[in-house]
Amino acid sequence: MSLVQDFQRHRGILFIVSGPSGVGKDTVLDNALQHLEGIAKSVSATTRHARDNERDGVDYYFYTRERFETEIAESAFLEYEEYGSQLYGTPLAPVERQLANGTDVVLKIEVKGALNVKRRYPETRLIFIQPPAFSVLEDRLRMRGKDTSEQIQRRLEIAKSELSERREYHYLITNDDLDTAINTLCAIIVAERNRIHPI
Amino acid sequence: MSLVQDFQRHRGILFIVSGPSGVGKDTVLDNALQHLEGIAKSVSATTRHARDNERDGVDYYFYTRERFETEIAESAFLEYEEYGSQLYGTPLAPVERQLANGTDVVLKIEVKGALNVKRRYPETRLIFIQPPAFSVLEDRLRMRGKDTSEQIQRRLEIAKSELSERREYHYLITNDDLDTAINTLCAIIVAERNRIHPI
Repeated sequence: MSLVQDFQRHRGILFIVSGPSGVGKDTVLDNALQHLEGIAKSVSATTRHARDNERDGVDYYFYTRERFETEIAESAFLEYEEYGSQLYGTPLAPVERQLANGTDVVLKIEVKGALNVKRRYPETRLIFIQPPAFSVLEDRLRMRGKDTSEQIQRRLEIAKSELSERREYHYLITNDDLDTAINTLCAIIVAERNRIHPI
Repeated sequence: MSLVQDFQRHRGILFIVSGPSGVGKDTVLDNALQHLEGIAKSVSATTRHARDNERDGVDYYFYTRERFETEIAESAFLEYEEYGSQLYGTPLAPVERQLANGTDVVLKIEVKGALNVKRRYPETRLIFIQPPAFSVLEDRLRMRGKDTSEQIQRRLEIAKSELSERREYHYLITNDDLDTAINTLCAIIVAERNRIHPI
């Protein structure tokens, strides 16, 4: 009598990771995924141009606006949003294919998109990464040196509004110490794989 | 603006770990607790006699039957059960004191007691440790060499009935590989500390 198969999941789990710009969510997520098997990061589509170090199909799928709008019309996106006159979205087909194969999938998306996915797939697990304090975010954005002072102000305003919605998420990770944040994200994914009952 | 205190818990979390005799739950739990801070294992009270290597207040509180029954009458137990003419119970006061101090507490108790605690404290997180297959349990109980053949049969019957109730638990860990089981238990505790919303 094998006891394992009684509660075996056949479909993968859908995770969402969000957090304000500058919180270090890419670093936390990419490091966590290196410690785990059976989980894939979804690649978003966007109409914005590729930066020098970005590869099509790895960092983003780079779509023309025409193609993006056609796919919206064909309901080919799990969610999409417009940010600063550019479209960003999660192509549905690859996510569906991986979940059906039993692979867990992580979407790294903004709060608005996350809450839309949650409405569509109530089983989605939502994880929010926050800085220990708002001032830390400001310091990190300045240190990163990618944005002008105005862009930083704009990012901080968006961050404030995103932080106010974090209570909609299931899990909250504070990225104070990087290793702790990585371990916590791994722990959440491992725990969710072993959860058999709502809590 | 500190963001951490917004969702700070002031009360500890109550965890229950159960599993059939021979599944290795003591080894998994004791090892997991060595990797974690801020969590204490509750010490049960019993009317049975101490074995040679057991210390009062560490392995169990050893009570006379009279004292145990007086404390039942005074509602001093969180839960208690009779097994093989001996009483076993969880003294309420130390658990309450630790939770109030913000320390997480783990009870290692049987399925019936666990479900009673869940009714009384619906916030309790229940974790069940199962063997990969029923035959593994039988082998382990025989190898352990502590019990007669009849005692093993009795333990296996209880195990069957306990396993049938594991769907009442929130989390299910299969103790196939010991290190994986220890890591999974740690992961569940870490994840629960970061959960801010029912899931």
